[in-house]
Amino acid sequence: MLFDSKTIDRIRSTLYSGVLSDVLDSLGHTGQAMRPDIRPVDDSLVLFGHARTGLYMDVYEVEPDENPYEIEIALIDDLKPGDVAVFGCGTSGRIAPWGELLTTASMCRKAVGCVTDGLVRDLRRIKEMRFPVFHGGIGPLDSRGRGKMMRMDGLIDCAGVKLRTGDWVFGDIDGVVVLPEKIAAETIRLAFEKVESENNTRRELLEGRLLGEVYRKYGVL
Amino acid sequence: MLFDSKTIDRIRSTLYSGVLSDVLDSLGHTGQAMRPDIRPVDDSLVLFGHARTGLYMDVYEVEPDENPYEIEIALIDDLKPGDVAVFGCGTSGRIAPWGELLTTASMCRKAVGCVTDGLVRDLRRIKEMRFPVFHGGIGPLDSRGRGKMMRMDGLIDCAGVKLRTGDWVFGDIDGVVVLPEKIAAETIRLAFEKVESENNTRRELLEGRLLGEVYRKYGVL
Amino acid sequence: MLFDSKTIDRIRSTLYSGVLSDVLDSLGHTGQAMRPDIRPVDDSLVLFGHARTGLYMDVYEVEPDENPYEIEIALIDDLKPGDVAVFGCGTSGRIAPWGELLTTASMCRKAVGCVTDGLVRDLRRIKEMRFPVFHGGIGPLDSRGRGKMMRMDGLIDCAGVKLRTGDWVFGDIDGVVVLPEKIAAETIRLAFEKVESENNTRRELLEGRLLGEVYRKYGVL
Amino acid sequence: MLFDSKTIDRIRSTLYSGVLSDVLDSLGHTGQAMRPDIRPVDDSLVLFGHARTGLYMDVYEVEPDENPYEIEIALIDDLKPGDVAVFGCGTSGRIAPWGELLTTASMCRKAVGCVTDGLVRDLRRIKEMRFPVFHGGIGPLDSRGRGKMMRMDGLIDCAGVKLRTGDWVFGDIDGVVVLPEKIAAETIRLAFEKVESENNTRRELLEGRLLGEVYRKYGVL
Amino acid sequence: MLFDSKTIDRIRSTLYSGVLSDVLDSLGHTGQAMRPDIRPVDDSLVLFGHARTGLYMDVYEVEPDENPYEIEIALIDDLKPGDVAVFGCGTSGRIAPWGELLTTASMCRKAVGCVTDGLVRDLRRIKEMRFPVFHGGIGPLDSRGRGKMMRMDGLIDCAGVKLRTGDWVFGDIDGVVVLPEKIAAETIRLAFEKVESENNTRRELLEGRLLGEVYRKYGVL
Amino acid sequence: MLFDSKTIDRIRSTLYSGVLSDVLDSLGHTGQAMRPDIRPVDDSLVLFGHARTGLYMDVYEVEPDENPYEIEIALIDDLKPGDVAVFGCGTSGRIAPWGELLTTASMCRKAVGCVTDGLVRDLRRIKEMRFPVFHGGIGPLDSRGRGKMMRMDGLIDCAGVKLRTGDWVFGDIDGVVVLPEKIAAETIRLAFEKVESENNTRRELLEGRLLGEVYRKYGVL
Repeated sequence: MLFDSKTIDRIRSTLYSGVLSDVLDSLGHTGQAMRPDIRPVDDSLVLFGHARTGLYMDVYEVEPDENPYEIEIALIDDLKPGDVAVFGCGTSGRIAPWGELLTTASMCRKAVGCVTDGLVRDLRRIKEMRFPVFHGGIGPLDSRGRGKMMRMDGLIDCAGVKLRTGDWVFGDIDGVVVLPEKIAAETIRLAFEKVESENNTRRELLEGRLLGEVYRKYGVL
Repeated sequence: MLFDSKTIDRIRSTLYSGVLSDVLDSLGHTGQAMRPDIRPVDDSLVLFGHARTGLYMDVYEVEPDENPYEIEIALIDDLKPGDVAVFGCGTSGRIAPWGELLTTASMCRKAVGCVTDGLVRDLRRIKEMRFPVFHGGIGPLDSRGRGKMMRMDGLIDCAGVKLRTGDWVFGDIDGVVVLPEKIAAETIRLAFEKVESENNTRRELLEGRLLGEVYRKYGVL
Repeated sequence: MLFDSKTIDRIRSTLYSGVLSDVLDSLGHTGQAMRPDIRPVDDSLVLFGHARTGLYMDVYEVEPDENPYEIEIALIDDLKPGDVAVFGCGTSGRIAPWGELLTTASMCRKAVGCVTDGLVRDLRRIKEMRFPVFHGGIGPLDSRGRGKMMRMDGLIDCAGVKLRTGDWVFGDIDGVVVLPEKIAAETIRLAFEKVESENNTRRELLEGRLLGEVYRKYGVL
Repeated sequence: MLFDSKTIDRIRSTLYSGVLSDVLDSLGHTGQAMRPDIRPVDDSLVLFGHARTGLYMDVYEVEPDENPYEIEIALIDDLKPGDVAVFGCGTSGRIAPWGELLTTASMCRKAVGCVTDGLVRDLRRIKEMRFPVFHGGIGPLDSRGRGKMMRMDGLIDCAGVKLRTGDWVFGDIDGVVVLPEKIAAETIRLAFEKVESENNTRRELLEGRLLGEVYRKYGVL
Repeated sequence: MLFDSKTIDRIRSTLYSGVLSDVLDSLGHTGQAMRPDIRPVDDSLVLFGHARTGLYMDVYEVEPDENPYEIEIALIDDLKPGDVAVFGCGTSGRIAPWGELLTTASMCRKAVGCVTDGLVRDLRRIKEMRFPVFHGGIGPLDSRGRGKMMRMDGLIDCAGVKLRTGDWVFGDIDGVVVLPEKIAAETIRLAFEKVESENNTRRELLEGRLLGEVYRKYGVL
Repeated sequence: MLFDSKTIDRIRSTLYSGVLSDVLDSLGHTGQAMRPDIRPVDDSLVLFGHARTGLYMDVYEVEPDENPYEIEIALIDDLKPGDVAVFGCGTSGRIAPWGELLTTASMCRKAVGCVTDGLVRDLRRIKEMRFPVFHGGIGPLDSRGRGKMMRMDGLIDCAGVKLRTGDWVFGDIDGVVVLPEKIAAETIRLAFEKVESENNTRRELLEGRLLGEVYRKYGVL
C-alpha cells in the first residue's frame, strides 16, 4: 500500500479537497476534481482511499438466465481494506448502483467509501452506518434492468474525471478529487506543506491586514 | 378508502420508497419513480396518501377581472383527510405553486402532504409545521402572473410520472413513488413481504458472508 | 447609507425573500429573484446589504507576470461595513470565486455576505464563521487559471438578475432577491405592510376558514 | 394597418433581422430576438407581418366531449390578411402545433407566416407552398393529447421574447425579431437609415481600408 | 417478411411519418416518435425497413487484444435485405458509430438504412451513395475507444423510443417513427386509410372553407 | 509558414476531418474535435489554416468612452494570409461575434476562414462570399453590450477544444478538428498515408467482401 494507516489517518484529519486540488493544479493536473453535482450523503465525513473502478452500461431489460449483478458482486466481494468503490454510470441519470446492501457488504470487507456519478438509495440507513458515500443524485430505483456493470478495475469516467483502479480518491464537504497513482505520494507531501502557508495567510488576515498585502507576502489565495 | 388508518400508519413506519419501486418494477411498472430532482423539505418525514392532482400552465400576465387562483383554491378547499396535493408544473422552472398559506390551509383540511415538480417557498415555516412537502426547487416567487392551475383531478405529469386523482403517492428521503390506483393494494401487500427477505439478506451479510453467496440464496440486492 | 442599522436589523428579523419578491412584482419588477439553483451555505442565516459587484471571465491560463487576483483583491480590500460581495461568473460552472480566505478578509472589513452564481469552497470553515454565503454550487477548485474578475462595481448578471453596485440584496432560506437602488426604500416600506396582511390571512386559516373565503377578504395568497 | 402594402414589400426586400435587432438595441429594447434554436423551414423566405398570438399548455389526455383544437381553430379562422400566427409552446419539446393543414387554412385567409417555439411537421408540403414558417424543431407528432391552445391574442413568451397580438414579427435566415407595437414604425424608419451606413462601411472595406479606420469613420460594425 | 416488396414500395411513396404517428396515437402507442434532434443526412430520402438493433456502451480505452468492433462487425455482416441498422448510443454525445465504410458494407448486404442517436461522419460520401441515414449529430470522431457495441438484436432505447430487432422503422423529413412488431401490419393498414381523409380535408380547405367547418366534417387536423 | 501553399491546397482537396481525427487519436490526442453543435455556414466548403485566437467575455453594458470592439478590430486588422479567426465565446449563447462586415474585412486581409462557438449573422451574404465560417448557432444579435474580446492570440477554449495562435484548424461537413502546433506536420503526413488504406478497405467492401474479413486484413473501420 502506498500509504500506511497512520498517514491515512493524518490525511483524513488534516487535508481537504481544496488544498489537494490546488496542489494538483500546480503539478499541471487541472482536471482532477469531479463535477459539483457529486455530493456526500453525510457532509461531516471525509473519504480517502484506493480506487476500485466499475464501468456501467445503460440496459433496458434483463436477459433470460442473466445475473445482472455478476461483475458488481465480484468487485464488492474482492474489495480490500482501504478500498473505495468508484462507479462510473455516465450521463443518463437512470442508473442507481448503490444502496444499503452494498454498503453493508463493503463495510464487512473493510472498504472505506463509495463514489459514483449514478444515483444512490437507502440514505437513512447509509447515514446511520456512517459510511462515506458520494453520489450524483438520490432515487429509489434498483439498477436491475436499468444499468449493469460491464468491466471492473479498468479506465472509467466518473463525474468528469478519468481514473482506474490504483488511483486514489479524496472526498469531503467541498467535493471529490482524484489523485493519479503516479503522483499520489508527491501530491500528499506538497499538500501537507501548503496547509502550513494557508494557516499563515489566515492568521495575518485575522490580525487585520489587507488581502493585497498578505497575498504579496505569501502568494496564496 | 382503499387503506384503513392503521394500515396507513404501518405503511409509513415500515415501508420505504426503494422497496415500493422494486415491487412496482416486478409488476412491470418501471416508470413510477419521480425524477431525482424532487426533494423533501424535511427528509425525516414520510409521506403517504391519496393523490389530488392539479395541472398548471405557464402564463405571462393576469387578465383583467381574473382570479388567478380560482381552481387552485377550489382544489385546496376540497381536500379530504388523507389527501396529498400533487401539482404538475412542467419544465419551465418559473412556477412556484406552494408555500406557507397553502400548507396551513391544507393541514386544516387534514391533508397529509404535497408533491410538486414546481418551486416551493416559505421553507422555514413549512419545516416548523412538519407537513411533508416534496418539490422541484426552492424560490421566493409567487405563482401569480407566472403559472395558473387550469384543471383539477385530471391526468398530469409530475417529475416524469403520469398520475391522476385516485392514485397513491409515497415519499421519503430517497424520493417519491406513485402507486397506480388499480395495483396500489397489491403493491403494498408485496412490499410488506419483500421487506422480510431484505432483512434476511442484511443479517447474513452482517454475519460476514460474501455478497455472491447471499445473493444466490435470496436473489435480492 | 439608505438604511440605518436599526432598520437593517428589523429587515433581517422581520422580512423574508417571498414578501420582497411579491412587493417587487406589484411594482412591476418581476425579474428580481435569482434562479433557484442559488443556495445558502447555512440556511438559517439571513443576508441583507449593499451590493458590490464583480464581473468574472472564463480564462484558460495565467499569463506571465499576471496577478490573476488583482481586481478581486482591490474589491475585497475596498469593502465597506454593510457591503455584500456579488460576483457574476456566468454559466460555465468552472469558476469558483469564493472560499475561506475571502470570507475571512471580508469579515475583517465588516462586509455582511457574499452572493455568487459561481462555485464556493471551504464550506466547513465558512459555516463555522457564520458568514452568509449564497452560491451556485460547491467545489474544491481554485479560480486561478479558470476565472478572473475583469471589472468591479459595474453591471453584472448574477443567476439571471442584472444588478450593479448601489443595488441591495436580500437572501434567506427561500433564495436571493435584488432590490434596485431607486426603489429599495419603497420596496422595504411596502414589505413591512404586506407582512401584516399575511399574518391576518394565516390567522383566519388557522381558525378553520376556507381558503376561498379568506382570499376574497384579504386578496393575499 | 400600421404599414401599407408597398412599405411591407420594401421591408421584406431591403431589411434584415440583424439591422432590426441593432435598431431595437439602440432604442433600449435588447431582448427582442428569439433564441437561435428557432429556424426557418425555408431559409430563402422572409417573413414580416402582424402577430396573432396563441398560448399553449402541455396536456396529457383529451377529456370526453372536448374539442382539443377549439381555440386554435378559432384563431386560424379569424386570421386577417398580413397576419402571422405566433404560437408559444414553452419548453417541454412535446407540443407540435403546426403542419400542412394549418398552413393551407392560413394561406386561404391570406396570413403571411407562422412562428412557433414548438415543433412543426409536414415540411415537404410546407416547403412546396412557400409559406414562411419558423419553428423550434421538427417532428411527426400531433398536438392532440399533448398540447392545447388555451388563450388567443394575449401575452405569450415565444422562444424567449414576450409579445402579444398587435406586435410585429420579422424573420429571415438569421432568425426572428419582434417589434413591439408602440415602436414598430420608429424601428422600421431607423432601420432603413442604418442599412445606408452599413453599405458605406462595406464599400470602404472592399476598397481595402482597415477595419479600425472604417469603424472610426462610421461607428458601425 | 411481414410486408412484400410491392407494399414496401407503396409505403415509402405514399405514407409519411406524421400519419404513422397519428395512427399509433390512435392505437394507444403515444411514445413511438424519436426525439426531434434525430435528423436525416438527406431529407429527400424515405426510410422504411425491419430494425436490427445494437446497444452501445461508453468506453474510455481499448483493452489489449480486444477487437473493439467485434459485435458491430457481426451485426453488419449479418444484415439481410430490407434491414435497417438501429444503434442506441445513449446520451453522452461521445459515440459516433456510423460512417462511410459501414454504409458501404451495409449497402452490399442490401440493407436499406441506418438510424442512430449517436453521431455520424463522412456525410459527403453518404449523401453521394443516397443511403438513408438518420442521426443524432455530426462529428469526425471514430467510435474506437469511445463507444462499443455490447449486444445485438436486444432491447435498446434510441432517441427516446424503446425497440428491438423485429420492430419496423419509418423515417422521412419530419423524423423517425417506430412500429412495434405486433401492430406493424395494423398500423400500415390504418395509415393508408387516414391518408385518404386528410386528402379530403386539404381539398375542402383549398376550396376556401373555414377550418372549423372542415374539422367538424372530417374530425382530422 | 509550416505548410507551403501547394501542400495546403492538397490538404483541402484530399483530407477530411474524420481522417485527421483518427490520426490525432492514434497520436494520443483524443480531444481535438470540436463539439458537434459547431456547424458550417456552407457545408461544401473546406477550411484549413493557421489559428488566430480571440477570447470573449460576457458583458452587460458598454461603458462610457469605451470602444467595445477594440481588441477585435486589432486582431482582424492583423490577420495574415492563410489565417483563420478562432473566437471562444463560452457557453452563454448570448455572444454573436461574426457577421458580414468581419467577413469582408478578413477576406481583404486574405484570411481563409472563421471558427467560433458563438453565434453568427448575415448568413446570406457570407454564403455569397464563399468564406468558410463554422459557428455555434445563428442569430441576428450584435455583440455590442453582450460580449467583448478581452485577449488575442492567447489560450482559448472553442467548443470544447483548447487552442492558441500557432495551432492549425481543419473544418469540413463533418466538423472542426484542431491540430496542435507541435504535431501538425506529423498529423498531416500520417493522414495522407491513412487515406490510402481507407481506399483499399472501401474497394474490397465494394467487391462484396464481408466487413469482418476486410477489417482483419486492413485493421481500419
